Formats: sequence, C-alpha cells, structure tokens
Amino acid sequence: MSNPIIHNGLEGIVASETELSMVDGLAGELVIAGFPVAELAMNATFEETAFLLWYGRLPGATELAAFRDDLAARRALPRAALDLLRAAAEKQVDSMDALRMAAGTISLRGSSKNDDEVARDLLAAFPTIVASYWRLLRAHDPLAPNPDLGHAANFLYMLSGHVPTDERVRGLETYLNTVVDHGLNASTFTARVIASTGSDLVSAITGAIGALKGPLHGGAPGPALDMVFEIGEAGRAEEVLRRKIESGEKLMGFGHRVYKVRDPRAGVLAAAAQRMFTRGGDLALYTLALDVEQTALRLLEEYKPGRNLQTNVEFYTALLLHGLDLEVPLFTPTFAVSRVAGWIAHCFEQRRANRLIRPQSVYRGPRGRTWLAAAEQRLDHRAQPAGLPLVSS
Amino acid sequence: MSNPIIHNGLEGIVASETELSMVDGLAGELVIAGFPVAELAMNATFEETAFLLWYGRLPGATELAAFRDDLAARRALPRAALDLLRAAAEKQVDSMDALRMAAGTISLRGSSKNDDEVARDLLAAFPTIVASYWRLLRAHDPLAPNPDLGHAANFLYMLSGHVPTDERVRGLETYLNTVVDHGLNASTFTARVIASTGSDLVSAITGAIGALKGPLHGGAPGPALDMVFEIGEAGRAEEVLRRKIESGEKLMGFGHRVYKVRDPRAGVLAAAAQRMFTRGGDLALYTLALDVEQTALRLLEEYKPGRNLQTNVEFYTALLLHGLDLEVPLFTPTFAVSRVAGWIAHCFEQRRANRLIRPQSVYRGPRGRTWLAAAEQRLDHRAQPAGLPLVSS
Repeated sequence: MSNPIIHNGLEGIVASETELSMVDGLAGELVIAGFPVAELAMNATFEETAFLLWYGRLPGATELAAFRDDLAARRALPRAALDLLRAAAEKQVDSMDALRMAAGTISLRGSSKNDDEVARDLLAAFPTIVASYWRLLRAHDPLAPNPDLGHAANFLYMLSGHVPTDERVRGLETYLNTVVDHGLNASTFTARVIASTGSDLVSAITGAIGALKGPLHGGAPGPALDMVFEIGEAGRAEEVLRRKIESGEKLMGFGHRVYKVRDPRAGVLAAAAQRMFTRGGDLALYTLALDVEQTALRLLEEYKPGRNLQTNVEFYTALLLHGLDLEVPLFTPTFAVSRVAGWIAHCFEQRRANRLIRPQSVYRGPRGRTWLAAAEQRLDHRAQPAGLPLVSS
Repeated sequence: MSNPIIHNGLEGIVASETELSMVDGLAGELVIAGFPVAELAMNATFEETAFLLWYGRLPGATELAAFRDDLAARRALPRAALDLLRAAAEKQVDSMDALRMAAGTISLRGSSKNDDEVARDLLAAFPTIVASYWRLLRAHDPLAPNPDLGHAANFLYMLSGHVPTDERVRGLETYLNTVVDHGLNASTFTARVIASTGSDLVSAITGAIGALKGPLHGGAPGPALDMVFEIGEAGRAEEVLRRKIESGEKLMGFGHRVYKVRDPRAGVLAAAAQRMFTRGGDLALYTLALDVEQTALRLLEEYKPGRNLQTNVEFYTALLLHGLDLEVPLFTPTFAVSRVAGWIAHCFEQRRANRLIRPQSVYRGPRGRTWLAAAEQRLDHRAQPAGLPLVSS
C-alpha cells in the first residue's frame, strides 16, 4: 500500500455489471434494456420504460394499465412534504434541494413497505414534488394530481393547470425515456453505493438527488438555450459563434466526455422537437437551433480540428423542454423526474447481487503526533492573529 | 471493454488520497490526522477533534473557545425540522431516517452560506436532532439545547434532561473521537461522491446518513451487548459461547474485514469504559464483558484457529454507550453524531483537489431489441397469469 495506484475519480474503473444501459461513446450508441435509445424513446410511454427497467421486460396491456393506475394512485404527497415545500419556497431554496427534502419524506409512509412499493411511491411523487414546488415558488397553490392522466401528462398538467395536447405529452415522454439511464453516472453510482450497504430505497434516492444537483454531474442544458437566444436569428450565428470561440468561450451543448461522435440522444431529441414544433409551437426557434447547430459544428471543426466536438444531449434537451414551456430552472428537476426510474432500477440490480461498495484510501498525512507536543504548539498559536486556515497546514 | 476487470465492491481499489485517517489492518493501527487514535481520543474534546479534521491542526485556546461557542449557538433546529420529527415519531419512523430527513432541512437556512458555515450548522444540529427524536419517540417534549455545555455534554443533557458528570462526558467524547473517521468507509465515500459533483454539503451529508443506516456498513454494536446480557454471569460464558459457535452462530463483536489484530479502537473504548464504570456505574457488567471477551477469544482460537477473529470496535462501543445509559436504538445515530465531523472533513478534502467520481459499468444485457417484436411478445404475456417478475427475464 505504500505506492498504490490512485484512481482519482475512478476513471476507467469498472465498478459493476449492468443489464440496464450500455453507453458506447466511440460508436455513439446508447442501449437501454436491450433497445437502441431511439427505438425505445420514440415508442414507449414513460410507464412502459420504468416497467422495462425495473422488471426486465415490457408489460402486457393489462399489466401496463395496472402499473399506470397504481402509480397514479400514489401521486399525492405526505402532508409533511407539502409543509416542507412551503417552508422552502418562503426561503427560495434551490429546486433540487427542495426535491431532495420532499422526496426524503416518503419514509413517513412507513417502513413496512417492500422495495417495490417504495419504488412506486418515489416514482409517482417526483412530478408532484417538482410541479408543486415550481408553483409555490411563484406563489401559486399546488394543484392536485389528475389520476386520469398518465405520468408525463400529469406532470405537465400539475405545472400549468392545463391538460396538455398529445403532441406535448409525446415530446415530454420522448425526453424522459431518452435520459432515464446512462451507465454509472455519479448520481446512479451514489444510489448504488447507498443501496450496497443494505440501506433503504428512499435513502439511496435522496443521495442520488444530491449528486444530480452538482454542476459537474452534467445535464445542465440551460446555457445551451441561452446561446440560441443570444444569437436570435440565423444570420448572426456565424458572427456570434466565431466571437465566442475566438475569445476562448466554451460552446454550451457541444462536446462530451464519453461520446466522440454525435450523442445518440441528441438525434432522438432533435426529432422529437421537430415533430412537436411542427405541430404547434415556435417553429422559427427550432429552425434557428438547427442552423446554430450546423454552424457551431462547422466552426468547431475549423477551429479545433480533430477534437470531435459533437452536439450533446443538452442542446436539444434545452430546445425540447423550452418548447414544452418549461423554464430553465425546471430542467434539472425534470431530468430527475426521469432519472429516478433509472436510479431505482440500479438499486434493484445492486440488491440482486450485492456487495458492499467500499474502496480504499491512501494516507498522506503526518504520523506519530502526540498530544503533549500539540499542546506546546498551541501556545504559539495563541500568540498569532486570529483566523481559521481553511486548508491543512 | 469487452472483457474488462470488474471491481465489484471496489475492493482494493484506491479511490483517493487523504490526510484525515490511516487504517492499517495488519498492524492494528489507526491514525487520525496524525495522532494515534488512542492519543487523540483520550485527550481531545470533540470540538478539538472536529477542528483538527476540518482545519488540519488543533485550535489554540481562544480559537477553541470561539469554535465551541459558535457551534453551541447553532444547535437549535429550523421549525420545519421539528415538525418533520414530530410527524416521523407519530409513524415510529426509523431513527436514521428521521436524522436524514431533519438534517436535510438545514438547506432551509439559506443557500448563501459558505461551506464552513453549513458544516458548523450540520455538526451542531446532529445531537439536537438525535436527542429530540429520541424524546419524541417516547412522547417526551424535546429539550432546548444548553449553550453552557460542550457538544458532547449537551447531547447527553438533551437526551436525559440531566447535566452529565465529567466522567460521563469524558466517556462519550472518547467514543466520539474514536469513531470520527475511518478511511473511505461506505458513508464517507458516499459523501465524497456527492461532493465531487460540486453539489452542496447538506446534500453530501444527507447521502452519507443514508449509507450509514445500512446494516452492511458496519458499526451496529447492539447485538454484541445482547450477547453479554444473554450470558448474564461470568460462569456461563464458556457454555453459552461454545453453544453459539458449535451451532454456527457468528459471535457479535468479534472479527473485522480489515483488522487482523485487535481493532485499535477496541482498546481505547475498553479503557474509557473501565475508567467510567470504575467511577460510578455497573462495574459488574464491565467485569462480565471482560470475561466474555477473554473466553470468546480463547474459544474462537480453539474452533477457528488461524482465522484471527479479534475483538472489534462494536464490543466495547456497546459496553461504553450502555454505560452512558444510551439504549441500543441510539447506537447508530450516536455514531452519526461523531462521524458527521469526518464526512464534512472528507467533503472539504474532496473540494480541495476535486475530480468527479464516476466509474464505468459493463453491459451484460440484450441488444437490438425492436419495439415491434416487443409488442408481439407482449401478446403472449397477456395470456399468462398476472404477477410481476422481480428479476429480469
């Protein structure tokens, strides 16, 4: 252990096998439970996708109806969760913190439930929490869930108070299906570490929400949309983008740590956006975005040849969610509304062949300090000016 | 990636360097921020230990007084936290879940605070949460914190309503110092993964609480004490223990995945228990425990020669905490009252040289499934009896 290899960030370390998703960054391929992401995302309702990930196959029609109804019946929040959201809104607490706090209260439903029931409670509660908090932040009363609507449709309804069109529901479901799982990303890994101790699902999901909040997790599509708005019209794309690249600014929505070709999710979301915008909505914005993308790719290849900076999932996520009238602060919570299904599936998978996830650290500090010597040193400190050092001496 | 090495449980993988603690399982050595655990645990107040871990050195007298006063001023909980604890007590929710929910509400104090302030809010809140919830579970009103008492003394006061003797405070502080940090255990690792995304401290600590709750995390000393009680008198130790070993039962309080000699923490806690029990308390129980330990070690060597099953931290933790009149369900939450200082120190350390912690997974599921084929398969499912398979097909 004196000179071990230190795997900072665990990069390249395979921590687990999975049957849930396969990310092939060189081929630009994403498989979700056997389906190419496009095949699943364009066809499945979100309930079907969750069922597929949790139970390993698609539901039959009767099973699907039962699953859908069961989830719909679990949408209301514990009273304490709503109180907490009200208190959070008063302090304008970050939406992901509010989601974490409220999701954590699912434990108030009692500890006698099995994993499957808790999983359904959690999945069903996420849209209610996110939509209720969104409204509370704007001093609107939360709406009661509408049990006649599916998971995605009800989320849109609870945000706006309007029953959404089929096109909009399809747009949101395509998004939710597309980002539902993506290998051992940091939030999914967090959920698996917590589950590996034998802890409960609510604890695992609460931890995962906390990880998803972090700006390095990825999946913060707001800035990509800001760039499109900043450009404003197709004729300005080249000028604005050249200026950004030449001043060293990173183009948001392009480039990914794993994908070296176009993120397969970008294509799915672009197609969904096109379909949705064509049938109503800001088609001009969609056309502009396409133009910005083409110009950005051309300029990135010109300025950074061989770097393979391709359109990532954020670019079309931003466009699609904007088309659904979701504002930027809702993007990450909406991501969580989808990803929670993946987190739960990973917890189930971790439970099936569990081994405590517990790596090692290597010590680089001093040794053999004695209390007496420390006391003498402290006499010196007392003579020094006050102030706490924030790094170790 | 087709035949990668799969590091299940990340066993033996070094994920990080640290200056916080060194666990040497072969030598039976535990170093905490430069001090052998015994040297630190027997001498430091808990505030000194937290200061040492967070700022890299022991505080001077003025600094210590300021740190102590500052923590004392942060002990009260947000109103929403107490409401949540009341709701949890009504449902008799697990104490660790209650701690997770209430600690999560520290986010209600506002997001403008820096890490150091949030760290202090969290550290100060833990004893208040644990003690308040303990009382609420028993239908007693929570007590207001007593700012004249130190961190450990106030915890005992808030549990019982009595200002504790110096011996008891010293006993608890020795315990808190002893278990404050222990390399990259699963809860500490969870905190670091969440912090590595750039997320906030409350999110990281909430995740860590969830991991500590898991029975595989280690540190569940209740059963070790149950065994001592079951034996009841020294003369029965050999008979009871032989029966347990011969029937294949695991002796609780002995054996550790890492330590192959006596866990260095066992010695520190045994000495603290001896000191405390000698000055008042159930000395007979202490003597009995010593006898049980000696008999157990002799029999383990007889039945499992070469296995090196040694006394672990749980055995004397149980004895010491019992001597402090803490009941078994309080053991893990009290562990958290200590370990949160270590979790926070690891978050600080992670921030100083951050790299997103994000391992890989390898896909073992099917590929190339098509929606159409799936729809046909589902026709078959409909004909089958209902019931959801909990494993993948």
